[in-house]
Amino acid sequence: MKTRLADLLAELGEGALLPPERELAERFGVSRVTLRQAVGELVLEGKVLRRQGRGTYVAPPKLVQPLALFSYSAGMRRQGVRPGRDIISLEHLAADESLAVELHIPAGDPVVHLERVLLADGERIGLESIYLSGKRFPTVADVLDPDTSLHTCLEQFGVVFAEAEELVETVLATPREALLIGTNPALPMLLLHRVSYDPDGVPIERARSLYRGDRFSFMTKMRVDGQT
Amino acid sequence: MKTRLADLLAELGEGALLPPERELAERFGVSRVTLRQAVGELVLEGKVLRRQGRGTYVAPPKLVQPLALFSYSAGMRRQGVRPGRDIISLEHLAADESLAVELHIPAGDPVVHLERVLLADGERIGLESIYLSGKRFPTVADVLDPDTSLHTCLEQFGVVFAEAEELVETVLATPREALLIGTNPALPMLLLHRVSYDPDGVPIERARSLYRGDRFSFMTKMRVDGQT
Repeated sequence: MKTRLADLLAELGEGALLPPERELAERFGVSRVTLRQAVGELVLEGKVLRRQGRGTYVAPPKLVQPLALFSYSAGMRRQGVRPGRDIISLEHLAADESLAVELHIPAGDPVVHLERVLLADGERIGLESIYLSGKRFPTVADVLDPDTSLHTCLEQFGVVFAEAEELVETVLATPREALLIGTNPALPMLLLHRVSYDPDGVPIERARSLYRGDRFSFMTKMRVDGQT
Repeated sequence: MKTRLADLLAELGEGALLPPERELAERFGVSRVTLRQAVGELVLEGKVLRRQGRGTYVAPPKLVQPLALFSYSAGMRRQGVRPGRDIISLEHLAADESLAVELHIPAGDPVVHLERVLLADGERIGLESIYLSGKRFPTVADVLDPDTSLHTCLEQFGVVFAEAEELVETVLATPREALLIGTNPALPMLLLHRVSYDPDGVPIERARSLYRGDRFSFMTKMRVDGQT
């Protein structure tokens, strides 16, 4: 049933108004309850977009973010989407045990914590939380620019990004995160953990990026070099 | 609240029995309803495992699958987990328009469709659906071995895996998929789409792998080679 509905949506095409519930239920020979459940699940998966008004519309395809050292900004621009960021908080902390290990700094050392809402064509689609060594980047707050990526800002400190480790999982947003992103807490999110390293193997940043699961996907390309 | 509960779980450690609901609600100064909701969300995220019995136990960490050309089997063995597969169906189809494009074969050409449940230490944790050209691999059914990866089987045809494109997203399982994996349909899943290519750029397989979002995460490591 869900598959047949998804096929119909593909046929209708992006931006089309979904036919009335009763008409669709008749067409598929199912009850309106069953139909409503199928539509609800497709909404959660980002395959249909329920607008503010009375109608339900076919959503555009999910955004694709390359799992590469490309920044969020570069990933969005490649798809013709205008990236943006709203700073939620910028605070100075002392590194706890786990941050100290990840950033290769002594526990208690100063850390800069930056939290920003990610925008795609003005729409809130994610939330990123970044930790940097305060000793290494003491004036990072002064060079932050909402229109450029943090990577670009950090290049002013002579930083070269050489490697990164990324972990992708699916989680539910906390109520606070859901509020900041403007979604409901039942929506599955994609969570990306990243630690980036410079050519000497020194960690540059620890990042935790949360993306709307109904609007986002990650892409990666691999080549075999000796590994099998 | 959820964060404080997650911290407590980390303290208790894997396999520990969660204290009674009433005791926890008192400890955190919240209602039992609030507590139950927080536990429920952590269960969905795989941070607590609710067992058959009356107790709730702290779950082991999520399995980590490398997003590389490593097979599922290799990824599991690296973590000391025994991989396994149950064949659900093996069927011969004619390629539809989209399969034909992805496999670089004419529409209507024979295609082998293989569906298997993925096991980790005997536990059902995912479902993979693979499409192969029937002309290229006419006898694939004869060399299938539940204990080895499909990659290993295909090597008998002289296939060399050179490149792959992978797309990761989060979806809800269909009722059929949830039944096969033995989970409830509300559980967010990680869905991995992959097309693998040989050294001549000819597609080898189109795969769609669905993993339990509460038990799985994907890992990738990147190196900059000229790209920024």
